[in-house]
Amino acid sequence: MAHAVNKEADALLDKEFKVLDHGFVRLVDYMGTDQAIVQAARVSYGEGTKKVSENRGLIRYLLRHRHTSPFEMVEFKFHVKLPIFVARQWIRHRSASVNEYSGRYSVMKEEFYIPQRSDVRYQSTVNKQGRSEEVVPDEMKDRFLDNLDKSNKESFGQYRQFVDEGLARELARIDLPLSLYTEWYWKIDLHNLFHFLRLRMDSRAQKEIRDYGTVMADIVKTVCPMAFEAFMDYTVNSYSFSGPELKILQGRLTVESLDKDEIVKQGLSKREAAELIDKLRRIKEL
Amino acid sequence: MAHAVNKEADALLDKEFKVLDHGFVRLVDYMGTDQAIVQAARVSYGEGTKKVSENRGLIRYLLRHRHTSPFEMVEFKFHVKLPIFVARQWIRHRSASVNEYSGRYSVMKEEFYIPQRSDVRYQSTVNKQGRSEEVVPDEMKDRFLDNLDKSNKESFGQYRQFVDEGLARELARIDLPLSLYTEWYWKIDLHNLFHFLRLRMDSRAQKEIRDYGTVMADIVKTVCPMAFEAFMDYTVNSYSFSGPELKILQGRLTVESLDKDEIVKQGLSKREAAELIDKLRRIKEL
Amino acid sequence: MAHAVNKEADALLDKEFKVLDHGFVRLVDYMGTDQAIVQAARVSYGEGTKKVSENRGLIRYLLRHRHTSPFEMVEFKFHVKLPIFVARQWIRHRSASVNEYSGRYSVMKEEFYIPQRSDVRYQSTVNKQGRSEEVVPDEMKDRFLDNLDKSNKESFGQYRQFVDEGLARELARIDLPLSLYTEWYWKIDLHNLFHFLRLRMDSRAQKEIRDYGTVMADIVKTVCPMAFEAFMDYTVNSYSFSGPELKILQGRLTVESLDKDEIVKQGLSKREAAELIDKLRRIKEL
Amino acid sequence: MAHAVNKEADALLDKEFKVLDHGFVRLVDYMGTDQAIVQAARVSYGEGTKKVSENRGLIRYLLRHRHTSPFEMVEFKFHVKLPIFVARQWIRHRSASVNEYSGRYSVMKEEFYIPQRSDVRYQSTVNKQGRSEEVVPDEMKDRFLDNLDKSNKESFGQYRQFVDEGLARELARIDLPLSLYTEWYWKIDLHNLFHFLRLRMDSRAQKEIRDYGTVMADIVKTVCPMAFEAFMDYTVNSYSFSGPELKILQGRLTVESLDKDEIVKQGLSKREAAELIDKLRRIKEL
Repeated sequence: MAHAVNKEADALLDKEFKVLDHGFVRLVDYMGTDQAIVQAARVSYGEGTKKVSENRGLIRYLLRHRHTSPFEMVEFKFHVKLPIFVARQWIRHRSASVNEYSGRYSVMKEEFYIPQRSDVRYQSTVNKQGRSEEVVPDEMKDRFLDNLDKSNKESFGQYRQFVDEGLARELARIDLPLSLYTEWYWKIDLHNLFHFLRLRMDSRAQKEIRDYGTVMADIVKTVCPMAFEAFMDYTVNSYSFSGPELKILQGRLTVESLDKDEIVKQGLSKREAAELIDKLRRIKEL
Repeated sequence: MAHAVNKEADALLDKEFKVLDHGFVRLVDYMGTDQAIVQAARVSYGEGTKKVSENRGLIRYLLRHRHTSPFEMVEFKFHVKLPIFVARQWIRHRSASVNEYSGRYSVMKEEFYIPQRSDVRYQSTVNKQGRSEEVVPDEMKDRFLDNLDKSNKESFGQYRQFVDEGLARELARIDLPLSLYTEWYWKIDLHNLFHFLRLRMDSRAQKEIRDYGTVMADIVKTVCPMAFEAFMDYTVNSYSFSGPELKILQGRLTVESLDKDEIVKQGLSKREAAELIDKLRRIKEL
Repeated sequence: MAHAVNKEADALLDKEFKVLDHGFVRLVDYMGTDQAIVQAARVSYGEGTKKVSENRGLIRYLLRHRHTSPFEMVEFKFHVKLPIFVARQWIRHRSASVNEYSGRYSVMKEEFYIPQRSDVRYQSTVNKQGRSEEVVPDEMKDRFLDNLDKSNKESFGQYRQFVDEGLARELARIDLPLSLYTEWYWKIDLHNLFHFLRLRMDSRAQKEIRDYGTVMADIVKTVCPMAFEAFMDYTVNSYSFSGPELKILQGRLTVESLDKDEIVKQGLSKREAAELIDKLRRIKEL
Repeated sequence: MAHAVNKEADALLDKEFKVLDHGFVRLVDYMGTDQAIVQAARVSYGEGTKKVSENRGLIRYLLRHRHTSPFEMVEFKFHVKLPIFVARQWIRHRSASVNEYSGRYSVMKEEFYIPQRSDVRYQSTVNKQGRSEEVVPDEMKDRFLDNLDKSNKESFGQYRQFVDEGLARELARIDLPLSLYTEWYWKIDLHNLFHFLRLRMDSRAQKEIRDYGTVMADIVKTVCPMAFEAFMDYTVNSYSFSGPELKILQGRLTVESLDKDEIVKQGLSKREAAELIDKLRRIKEL
């Protein structure tokens, strides 16, 4: 068969998708599509697979039941340019391969992240790690952005000066700010990329890394549309209820009249409908 | 402070907890308790932590929001004796360290797993990888168990014979069956152990590995009771609903009268109650 | 650029390379070639890279200095059919993705590994985990191979019988021997594959897994010939000397007359020659 | 047996070992000592172990032959305070668990790394990522250090000001420099810690992370002295020769007169001596 072909995905290769003011995400290469997930899953089922005929149904089944290993069979390689404070959050995802631009080997470029005016926000009081919706006065925005700009110019000027005088690059760079851009090659499989996207597309993630997540999600959607749809349904848009929560909700869920036909009419497959009914029955019996 | 002390857990050290007919689980060592989770989480919060005063609340918060890294700070080391077919399922959990008895170095012992009569079951027709509840006739049970016993004796007799004649152990053993017992040291952190337990305590896991999961769950409960309680509530006893499922259930959930006091009365903390109300509100608005 | 093209490698895709009596290795897909290693390494060097002009030299430099991360940027996906006792050694390599045929879902096929007559050997007395070179009498070979064949037929006959009578597959299979064939999809990056090959092509590895290693090495050599050459030179065919060993050898190494030109004449690059001279100087000074 | 006891190691627990100007390494907890390595290795050897009687010999054998899994059975947990540019190098070691102080949750502390005067160096011309030995004039040192100090004060003053005015912490901090201190809990097993130490104690590592490596090496030496000695001999102080290099050296190695007794006299064990002789013989035959 040679390499799986996905023309829509191939059309994305090597395009720089802009993120923030100077950053980008570029799909360098990928291996496998929805088909690769199905193919790997079916080796497990051997002769027993013949009845699971529909790829979309199988992919949804796998994700619903957290049979995650077939999703590891698809691989993505990105070239990303991103501010260092974003890189520090990103690198916490350990199941990936990275080659980063080195400030010891090479001179850093004069590129810093400056937020858009609309993104300059107060500290949230409800979310200890986030931003408030409350409007920041223009004067304060100006002062913050002007200060960033001035400070970046000064830091970089000094950095450039010391590097030109021959100071070790690894030392000269320690005064550069976290808003400086770096870049890297980053390779990850689809299962771990979904994990990354779930955390980094979440409203609690910092806005700047969320912007990267959003762009990468679009790329994933093009490479493996069925897997991405399942990911949105079962992971991003799902809600989980704990045992104690379900005990409280039990009596408040009116589902007696809900039958398979009704559910299928609302878009679930027969198998999905049967599983929902079964799940509701088990919750009733908790 | 020296090593954290948990007397109940220390009392478990080096005891063999029987599993199946010849297997066991033995806690060889552990590092950290509930306290180690809290301690690691608090380094993230720095000065901001003072208000999150209650350990149980913090541990539950962390697990509820899948802040999993503090759970990696607790480590378990087990000595396990188990049939090879169970070992083959077990080893799929990659985030662990293993040292196994080697059939190349050493002569295998004559110990095989023979199921209990009550565990001899028909193939399930609903679950392609499980057993049916339907009763197997005594004659068939006898025939199956007698055959195992006879076959084990023959295989091991031949194995022993060839080893005694000097044949390479690594070759002689290839005729031994998957029911043969092996043993290993297995080290894993609590986050990954929870993942193991979630999959292996599940009703869809093979009964034999489930028995190991159950024994290990008891050990974990003793070492970190708060984390284990949170794991049961938010992972084992939780149910997740996909986006499309929630659309169907939206109109069938009567929760308008559910207020914080009512929820707290049913055992949730104030924070947990507030989060439940918020979650229900978001689902209504989907 | 779209996907990197390596015509020789593409010609290997989907061919079954026979291993042992019923096994095979099949390259299902790959991502990247030598070029992908260079490309990832150069992102680290940024502007500083221009002088490192030669790909082969760079790849050798990276491997020599164990800059391993660029080698993670090449990915391989294999379909492998192998006896279970080989699979048990293989699966110990954790940095890989696996989907295996399931004996719970599906009926196993009647295929067992029977060694070639020439591979039936005595236990080695020098290598506790290996085979001797000493010749095994024909009578003993016959007896061992006949017994395997007879035992396999009996085991599989019983297995088939119980499965046909409806016994749970996950139970019926526990009497099958370790010589039974299984199959899996196995995905791994080049760095980790080199680690696998180093251990599994080694003379101390069991002969049967070594046969798989040999076939896979040929595939890797086709996909990334430069990286493979460096791997052979710096890993497979290298020897390491401990500090105490070097102290003993110091006075016995006559290398005063060895100059750069002399070394280059014998095939090393100028840079490699300079590094060798430097290494010898440091050893002299230990 | 309860937890393994190593009094020297227990005496280190919770002590802050100073590194750089404001940093430290603190051993929070550990699991296992040399004994744990031996114990795990012996499960592999089963009955066959009795002859490998000496722990030191076994540990050296394991490391010499890269049987690395028993070294994973020892676990370390450190609390480390370190500048962000060091943290960025450190975090590349993925086989570890981390909980870091969060600049989103909490206000950063006013602590920056200022190099010692003697560490202010020119860029090396031989090592693209390192420092030269050449002396930097006092004037330039003063200018660099004064600039760091002034720049830190300004950056932090602005940061503090905007945080006080209520700006989101996650935004205010992006102007802080890479020399700012952060802290984390870091847990890793001995095998992976050796890998970290090999790379980070190396002369090519940046001086600042090397200082952390040196302090941690001392801690490891106390917790598992035999394993540490083997690590120094076989890893840190070892040299490796490639196949092509060995071909060049073959005729220049005068080892005919080197016999086992002679080697043992120089400090190697009998087994180590026999292996050295065997290695030299194989190199001669290349």
